[in-house]
Amino acid sequence: MLPFARVAIVGMGLIGSSLARAIRAAMPTVRLVVTDADPAVRARVLSLNLADDVADGAGAAAVDADLVVLAVPLGAFAAVMAEMAPELAPGAIVSDVGSAKGIVLDVLGPLMPPHAHLVPAHPVAGTEKSGPDAGFAALFEGRWCILTPPTGADPAAVAQVSEFWTRLGSKVEVMDARHHDLVLAVTSHIPHLIAYSIVGTASDLEGVTEGEVIKYSAGGFRDFTRIAASDPTMWRDVFLSNKDAVLEVLARVSEDLSALQRAIRWGDGDTLHSRFSQSRAIRQAIVEAGQDTAAPDFGRNAQE
Amino acid sequence: MLPFARVAIVGMGLIGSSLARAIRAAMPTVRLVVTDADPAVRARVLSLNLADDVADGAGAAAVDADLVVLAVPLGAFAAVMAEMAPELAPGAIVSDVGSAKGIVLDVLGPLMPPHAHLVPAHPVAGTEKSGPDAGFAALFEGRWCILTPPTGADPAAVAQVSEFWTRLGSKVEVMDARHHDLVLAVTSHIPHLIAYSIVGTASDLEGVTEGEVIKYSAGGFRDFTRIAASDPTMWRDVFLSNKDAVLEVLARVSEDLSALQRAIRWGDGDTLHSRFSQSRAIRQAIVEAGQDTAAPDFGRNAQE
Repeated sequence: MLPFARVAIVGMGLIGSSLARAIRAAMPTVRLVVTDADPAVRARVLSLNLADDVADGAGAAAVDADLVVLAVPLGAFAAVMAEMAPELAPGAIVSDVGSAKGIVLDVLGPLMPPHAHLVPAHPVAGTEKSGPDAGFAALFEGRWCILTPPTGADPAAVAQVSEFWTRLGSKVEVMDARHHDLVLAVTSHIPHLIAYSIVGTASDLEGVTEGEVIKYSAGGFRDFTRIAASDPTMWRDVFLSNKDAVLEVLARVSEDLSALQRAIRWGDGDTLHSRFSQSRAIRQAIVEAGQDTAAPDFGRNAQE
Repeated sequence: MLPFARVAIVGMGLIGSSLARAIRAAMPTVRLVVTDADPAVRARVLSLNLADDVADGAGAAAVDADLVVLAVPLGAFAAVMAEMAPELAPGAIVSDVGSAKGIVLDVLGPLMPPHAHLVPAHPVAGTEKSGPDAGFAALFEGRWCILTPPTGADPAAVAQVSEFWTRLGSKVEVMDARHHDLVLAVTSHIPHLIAYSIVGTASDLEGVTEGEVIKYSAGGFRDFTRIAASDPTMWRDVFLSNKDAVLEVLARVSEDLSALQRAIRWGDGDTLHSRFSQSRAIRQAIVEAGQDTAAPDFGRNAQE
């Protein structure tokens, strides 16, 4: 039996529109209502035929939905929820796809009507592209989706959301929201922050032109530019929403980078070699866990 | 006319063995002699049939060669050159594929016999794999190769090396060695250092297990693990050989990262958004310059 008969998605960017496509592919009988704050996006979603209905706003989308998924930047959660709350049906489940989860409990929790359930979720998947045209149905296949239900959440509601993501091809894990925020600070937020930072540094550096940075980017820099091309609004909100964990991990990153800096300054080759030798095992484990391609250079050099 | 009739390659790792394959493909009549310090690599090169001759050492490989290419870690340059120098034929050209170039002039220059020419080169290409099995002929196609001849270098020798790399599919640029070292510090060395550093940080962090880092790496972290899986010996030598430029750029990286850290701490969303908005143009320019794929997620999600 399908976990939900009627699903609403609020926000039709990369993740929201991928979710719509994935639901269409895996659960074609689900009645799908979507919306987006941007009228141009709503029009595009209509012409792409990504849903059964395109509602004018979050309130209208939420009416009669069994599951409502917020797929907007975290900074918009409170406003969207205020609009939806009066429309939520008894037993409706509110979920989301936000990249920080403590804040979701803090912001959505107090706004939830008592007859509805909150089961936050974070599909750990994405690309550097944005908007409804960038989405695709297979985005969540083989990826992890982390659920962070609040204390005392209805186990049946959690099981339904878990079944939902499993049908979309994801592997599901339930986790405490604060632990999620620390783990994702390491595996996602800090890599994005550093990528954004170093791409900015390279563009502004005296003595090296932007043309040179572009020409010789195949030496490694181009890898950083991919995630640094991700949606700025979404990422601004992630950093504002996961401040404590990001600052905590960032302090460790700075410490470790200083240690390498010192080793370079003093010509300590042994320290460099021993640090550099530890990374291959992690790369190998990520490939073996099916979380990255085994092809050299991400398969960009498909000649071999 | 072929720029060289007899080419020697010292070092048969990823770059040396790719070079051998590329020469075989683009200039099949070139007589190719190769060697490697590791007997197991020499045996493997023989069985892969990557060259006409596999010499026991750099001295033997250099005999009668028109071009000798050093493709060993930078720390081995002096020893290899001392072994080769007495064997170099009159008019022979010594080149290399090292990632730092000031040091190449400093180390090789004084060891060059007066009847031979030094024309250092840096093909800006590679993958995270190592060893003779990892090489492939197309590695240099469409990539830049930077030549850094010393002051007063023979223009004919420079032209020959330029023609050589052009035939292998590369675009050639001539540059001052010190400028090369600053540009590559930005586009290659610092990205590798930061990737190595953050992969180390993630493995050692209290409160987050290595299993969690691996599972949720698709959030961005996995991108960093690719270049952090590169050869530790080669990269140790790069950092020891390009100390000044790396430390200079690293200071700027730390400054810019601190500015973002401050913006997060103080909840300054405008600064974050404005910094994050600058990176897409660079990504786009890199793709348009043919230096990276336009496919989302480096084409790893080939479903769309």
